[in-house]
Amino acid sequence: MYTIGIDFGTESGRVLLVDTRDGREVATAVIPYANGVIDEQLPESGVRLPPEWALQDPNDYVEVVKQGVPAVLKESGVSPDEVAGIGIDFTSCTMLPTKADGTPLSNLPEWRANPHAWVKLWKHHASQPQADKINEVARQRGESWLQLYGGKISSEWFFSKALQILEEAPEVYEAADRLIEAADWIVWQLTGVETRNACTAGYKAIVQDGVFPSRDYFAALDPRFADVVDTKMSREFLPLGAKAGGLSQQAAEWTGLKPGTPVAVANVDAHVTIPAVGAVEPGIMVMIMGTSTCHMLLGEEIQPVEGMCGVVRDGILPGYYGYEAGQSGVGDIFAWFVDNAVPPEYHEAAKQAGLDLHQYLEREAARQKPGEHGLLALDWLNGNRSTLVDADLSAMLLGMTLGTRAPDIYRALIEATAYGTRIIIEAFEDRGVPVKELIAAGGLPEKNKLLVQIYADVTGRPIKLAGSQQAPALGSAMHGAVAAGIYPNIKAAAEKMAKLKDEVVQPIPENQAVYDQLYAEYKTLYDYFGRGANDVMKRLKKIRNQALAVQA
Amino acid sequence: MYTIGIDFGTESGRVLLVDTRDGREVATAVIPYANGVIDEQLPESGVRLPPEWALQDPNDYVEVVKQGVPAVLKESGVSPDEVAGIGIDFTSCTMLPTKADGTPLSNLPEWRANPHAWVKLWKHHASQPQADKINEVARQRGESWLQLYGGKISSEWFFSKALQILEEAPEVYEAADRLIEAADWIVWQLTGVETRNACTAGYKAIVQDGVFPSRDYFAALDPRFADVVDTKMSREFLPLGAKAGGLSQQAAEWTGLKPGTPVAVANVDAHVTIPAVGAVEPGIMVMIMGTSTCHMLLGEEIQPVEGMCGVVRDGILPGYYGYEAGQSGVGDIFAWFVDNAVPPEYHEAAKQAGLDLHQYLEREAARQKPGEHGLLALDWLNGNRSTLVDADLSAMLLGMTLGTRAPDIYRALIEATAYGTRIIIEAFEDRGVPVKELIAAGGLPEKNKLLVQIYADVTGRPIKLAGSQQAPALGSAMHGAVAAGIYPNIKAAAEKMAKLKDEVVQPIPENQAVYDQLYAEYKTLYDYFGRGANDVMKRLKKIRNQALAVQA
Repeated sequence: MYTIGIDFGTESGRVLLVDTRDGREVATAVIPYANGVIDEQLPESGVRLPPEWALQDPNDYVEVVKQGVPAVLKESGVSPDEVAGIGIDFTSCTMLPTKADGTPLSNLPEWRANPHAWVKLWKHHASQPQADKINEVARQRGESWLQLYGGKISSEWFFSKALQILEEAPEVYEAADRLIEAADWIVWQLTGVETRNACTAGYKAIVQDGVFPSRDYFAALDPRFADVVDTKMSREFLPLGAKAGGLSQQAAEWTGLKPGTPVAVANVDAHVTIPAVGAVEPGIMVMIMGTSTCHMLLGEEIQPVEGMCGVVRDGILPGYYGYEAGQSGVGDIFAWFVDNAVPPEYHEAAKQAGLDLHQYLEREAARQKPGEHGLLALDWLNGNRSTLVDADLSAMLLGMTLGTRAPDIYRALIEATAYGTRIIIEAFEDRGVPVKELIAAGGLPEKNKLLVQIYADVTGRPIKLAGSQQAPALGSAMHGAVAAGIYPNIKAAAEKMAKLKDEVVQPIPENQAVYDQLYAEYKTLYDYFGRGANDVMKRLKKIRNQALAVQA
Repeated sequence: MYTIGIDFGTESGRVLLVDTRDGREVATAVIPYANGVIDEQLPESGVRLPPEWALQDPNDYVEVVKQGVPAVLKESGVSPDEVAGIGIDFTSCTMLPTKADGTPLSNLPEWRANPHAWVKLWKHHASQPQADKINEVARQRGESWLQLYGGKISSEWFFSKALQILEEAPEVYEAADRLIEAADWIVWQLTGVETRNACTAGYKAIVQDGVFPSRDYFAALDPRFADVVDTKMSREFLPLGAKAGGLSQQAAEWTGLKPGTPVAVANVDAHVTIPAVGAVEPGIMVMIMGTSTCHMLLGEEIQPVEGMCGVVRDGILPGYYGYEAGQSGVGDIFAWFVDNAVPPEYHEAAKQAGLDLHQYLEREAARQKPGEHGLLALDWLNGNRSTLVDADLSAMLLGMTLGTRAPDIYRALIEATAYGTRIIIEAFEDRGVPVKELIAAGGLPEKNKLLVQIYADVTGRPIKLAGSQQAPALGSAMHGAVAAGIYPNIKAAAEKMAKLKDEVVQPIPENQAVYDQLYAEYKTLYDYFGRGANDVMKRLKKIRNQALAVQA
């Protein structure tokens, strides 16, 4: 039998048809979102969006289902009878206001020109003032849950976004019967049944052991917000791998699948990657490396690790505490460098060599020994997510001479992100949460062998590599297989369906010795600039903002 | 009457014919050195040079005289009768070994294939081990002169280079009847008389009030070096503006000038610029800004200012203490950035706008308010000359985000060099040596208006601009006029012949206020990385050297 996994990303949705016996990937389809990321103006009305906004059109998600599922059936020749289940994963927190029947407010003519009626994408950051308030009130009240989220709730998360709707568009808040994760919304569209998954509830909506923050807390944020949970959300959560419902008649028509086909409860793209690489035991850290990196880890007990994104029981795999940490800039740092700081001769040389510029710089940087470029960087171009949880930090590069060249800096930036990962690993281990082994997933390790070797050398740990280029969709297909009853639980599904490459990248001892020295330097500067000894980065941002305000 | 000033630079010599009544520049000729900077292999023999070597061919200097003087006579139509005198200035310390008659050893067949027989150019840095020894022995012996050179003698200076010859090529040292500054050597070629000028003796050969370090000191460096002064040099120095001699018959044939035409004693390019811009009073700092910056200042008394290059009585202008400080990387930092860190789109846009890339980046950077880019740099890509006197320091850039673009960094680098100048100004004023006014000379301020404004804003001082694009040659022509007796002294010559632009660049108060904040940040990091709190830059260089050694 087969299952289908659908991975809803930032720019497109990816549909994967998988053989449940062995995880073989039979057919795949990628459907770009027609409206992509909406960050300048609303479609149709043309209403302009302020800075830091990022919206999406929920109809684009439905199109992924309508176009992608028939495409993989057609490509594979697999009959709808042979498709036993469906699982989905989504970016998160990506959330929207809907009516009681699930209709997005943005689909209603009276709300279509109001930005707050649309889906708020995970990287919508305009709710920072609300996040600040959420954190400030939690600190004042001594809310115990705060430490389980590294001491800070992000602007990206559910209540920051919900509170922004209430404060800035109370009429939209009022009109919304539901505020819901897009992940749960698309499952609702597939099944006709509204469910809420335990993963996004735990990591993004501050649910610990099934319990939200108190009504008093929400009231302290805003009296109108006191009953947000009971009026707009739900207190019932389905565990990961559970069946949300069967495919509705309408969704069956969209897809060509049989009505009643089991659909698993929704999940998050990073989290669903864990079973896809078979990391179903404590002590294995999975690094999902793309523009940013998520670090996922299972633990036997709950520990307040410094500055992590969250720890949630059953949040990744039922039966374990699921820890999440992250680095807010990784691939996008390298992209920034390649786009903004590499002179024409390297562009030309890359073209001559038939390589893209990343590959060319990687090849040149790989000729060096550790330490040879004499550089050290702090990788905070996009702030620091863990362990400092501080978006106001910025990057630093040190050691340049008149002999410094682009491949030197490229290598130093890769190394800086590796040092950042080692800081996170040590934060876990300092709290007694072991990290024995690393698995790298996502687009970056796939493309950049030097990067994986540097991570092995810097962390002193062997690194295994995800076996699928579509690990999230594969993980979703596993959840579909569990929902369909093919496997009794995700662990069992992972044993048969998970995929790792045969190759294991081992740390090279002589490189480790050099990187231990360089890491010590990184750590000193990490603390100096990141922990208050010299807050120059924050002051520079303040001066910058004042300069920009004078101009405006 | 007219005089001729000849400025011997790094790549070429510049001959300028000047009207002594008003300093009007009548004709000019630039003669490139056929052998330029010799830093890879010797001409003819092809002998390879190690890293950090930089040599020149003394015959190239003679060619400047032979070709350049007739050219300006021809261009101007001025008769040899109307040329009253000649002055020259030179890079320094640029020195060579000669026979007793002035013949360079490199012109003798038996020595021509020996690198140590050639001219050691100012930027020959391979004598660092000898400089280290000179400093170490001076510290051990408590030599009082050391503090008058900022506590450190440079690898570029006379005895570092002389000791390198002795240690590495004792046979050359033995064969040399004279070790002499190229500045004095070319005057010797013009007049047939060997003289030594007080300026290079003071700044580059540790002569204070006419006295060298002691024989005991030289003996402590190496017993064979004990009598270097008495066997290879001279203890007699002529003051600046003095007549070294009359033009010899041979030099008259080379140039077309009359035999006996007065030739002034030699001078240094940076130092001779001071009278050329009329800075003949204490309190006026002249910044000669090119690849690096020299800061020249007259004072009424001698003070050991932290980390300056040197203070010499009568070293710039008779009657005053002449102070010299410097920044080892300025224009070459901007050139490094433009060559190595600007993406193709800016190259393209500059071309479209008909500007060179420096001009284009300056134009873009000039659109910003101070602080708007959010960046802060330490300008040590080429080490720090003053006040830290530490070639092992390296650069730092801080504050980058994903929104940082090339003009932001370009502006931050300009600002960093301005902060570096302010540090030097404050070092002088901390010691009671006043700096009331700034004059900018050299190629950089000529080309970059934004840079001059930033320097005014950062230092809080009005900046005047040199009126001649050939200020050193003009200054040399003034010395020629004094040697010829047209003016009684250099001050009197400067009153008539010096040139400043009419424009004075004033600091803008609101910019000053922002730069005061940013300068405070710079100073904190300057101290943190430069004064031992965190020696990460030195450790990175050590690690780099180890990495390179492993490969070699």
